Amino acid sequence: MSLPFSDVGSLLAHPSWRDVVESALAGRLETSTELEDPDLAPVVTHPSKVVCCGHNYAGHIREMGRPLPEHPTLFTKFADTLTGPSDVVTVPEWATGLDWEAELVAVVGAPLYRATRDDAAAAIAGWTAANDLSVRSWQRHTGQWLPGKAFDRTTPLGPVLVTADELDPTAGLTLTCRVNDEIVQRGDTADLVFDAAALLSYISAFTRLSPGDVVLTGTPAGVGAAATPPRALADGDVVEVELAGVGVLHNPISIDNTAVAGPVSRPVHGGTA
Amino acid sequence: MSLPFSDVGSLLAHPSWRDVVESALAGRLETSTELEDPDLAPVVTHPSKVVCCGHNYAGHIREMGRPLPEHPTLFTKFADTLTGPSDVVTVPEWATGLDWEAELVAVVGAPLYRATRDDAAAAIAGWTAANDLSVRSWQRHTGQWLPGKAFDRTTPLGPVLVTADELDPTAGLTLTCRVNDEIVQRGDTADLVFDAAALLSYISAFTRLSPGDVVLTGTPAGVGAAATPPRALADGDVVEVELAGVGVLHNPISIDNTAVAGPVSRPVHGGTA
Repeated sequence: MSLPFSDVGSLLAHPSWRDVVESALAGRLETSTELEDPDLAPVVTHPSKVVCCGHNYAGHIREMGRPLPEHPTLFTKFADTLTGPSDVVTVPEWATGLDWEAELVAVVGAPLYRATRDDAAAAIAGWTAANDLSVRSWQRHTGQWLPGKAFDRTTPLGPVLVTADELDPTAGLTLTCRVNDEIVQRGDTADLVFDAAALLSYISAFTRLSPGDVVLTGTPAGVGAAATPPRALADGDVVEVELAGVGVLHNPISIDNTAVAGPVSRPVHGGTA
Repeated sequence: MSLPFSDVGSLLAHPSWRDVVESALAGRLETSTELEDPDLAPVVTHPSKVVCCGHNYAGHIREMGRPLPEHPTLFTKFADTLTGPSDVVTVPEWATGLDWEAELVAVVGAPLYRATRDDAAAAIAGWTAANDLSVRSWQRHTGQWLPGKAFDRTTPLGPVLVTADELDPTAGLTLTCRVNDEIVQRGDTADLVFDAAALLSYISAFTRLSPGDVVLTGTPAGVGAAATPPRALADGDVVEVELAGVGVLHNPISIDNTAVAGPVSRPVHGGTA
């Protein structure tokens, strides 16, 4: 099925996108074509906002001996932090500690501002998956995580959007991460402390969400940084995220030892310091 | 002087924006008109990235007894977090602890990726000012500052862009914040630990910067949260930020006691928590 929109975000920006999809599906048997080995872009290519949640799986929080949080821990990525579901993810050699984070993602389908939980739930267009690949060394440069979370084209998103009427993550979807076929994370989306509706409601208290915006809901136990000793992805590794009902992200890792290290190889102090 | 661009960002996206400005300035004496009491938008209305730095004035860091940081503390705002230089800033009553932060802002004039400090310095189009108004209660919900830093339309930006050839913040510009005419902050941009070139170089190590992007460089001592007892802005207050050579942001504060408190008046837990 193909639709006259450049990406899922521009489809969702159409006020009657549900009708558009329904009409297109009505003719599906005649027009559907299976793409063989498609080179997909991120399922939403230009979200105006990419908001992510940390510390959000109850089992993982409890096993770390921490109390359940009262508020979601939020940070952002940029639209160009995203990459396709089967793209090679390349980071420079000096971005050490590249780690996996399998996540359920909510895609916004209607404008939201100061929304109740119910309104937020109704505004979710559907679900997709992400690998919130994190450069732990840069994430820990300071107390604010941004640098390690926003390396260019390091967050695979996709492979498809499954509309909200077809899938209910609060009822429990298995979320798995594999590194070279070894299972490293296996969580259940029913274990989220703040489910997607709660997250969207909270976010919309301070900032407007628009159709096509994406909210990453956090990762379950089993990240490399929490292993003893800590683990990191290496050149040539293949990392896969699988969300039941949505599909698989399959991303080879490439470590680039030629990338300019200018900002890293010397102190970044300016001014009079 | 008026130019055929919708805002400063779209001007800066023109590959030869310096020539465009120069030609326009050549005819300035004939065409210049002074706007009386203009209702200005933020000087850049739609930056693709708004990156901000905390903990960046050496004097303030030393007076807090902390060591100078090795890396800049970075967080983001959204384009719609910005507001005009003389706009009323409105926050809901439940967004308690609204605080001022006078800042120097660098506006990016050329694409930057993994840039050296010198390349970053050369890519700065010019300078403007911001008030990084912060909702301290929401900033402290968790360790990540985003919610308190990204309330809708709370960051005045402007009033104008002064091009880099006309002003040198590393040589020292006085940055002042006044609340109802009382001076609450007075800093000097020469006191920045990471000057703008260092910040842009560091940011460009992980993410691409584009013409029209803005980087807020941090605030000097004197914020309300650090006062004894802590101070916050109240309904009817007027807060002004003045950056020597750039101008004044003049923003009345309005506290809205009618805003929906849905996401705030009850725990935001979903799922199984």
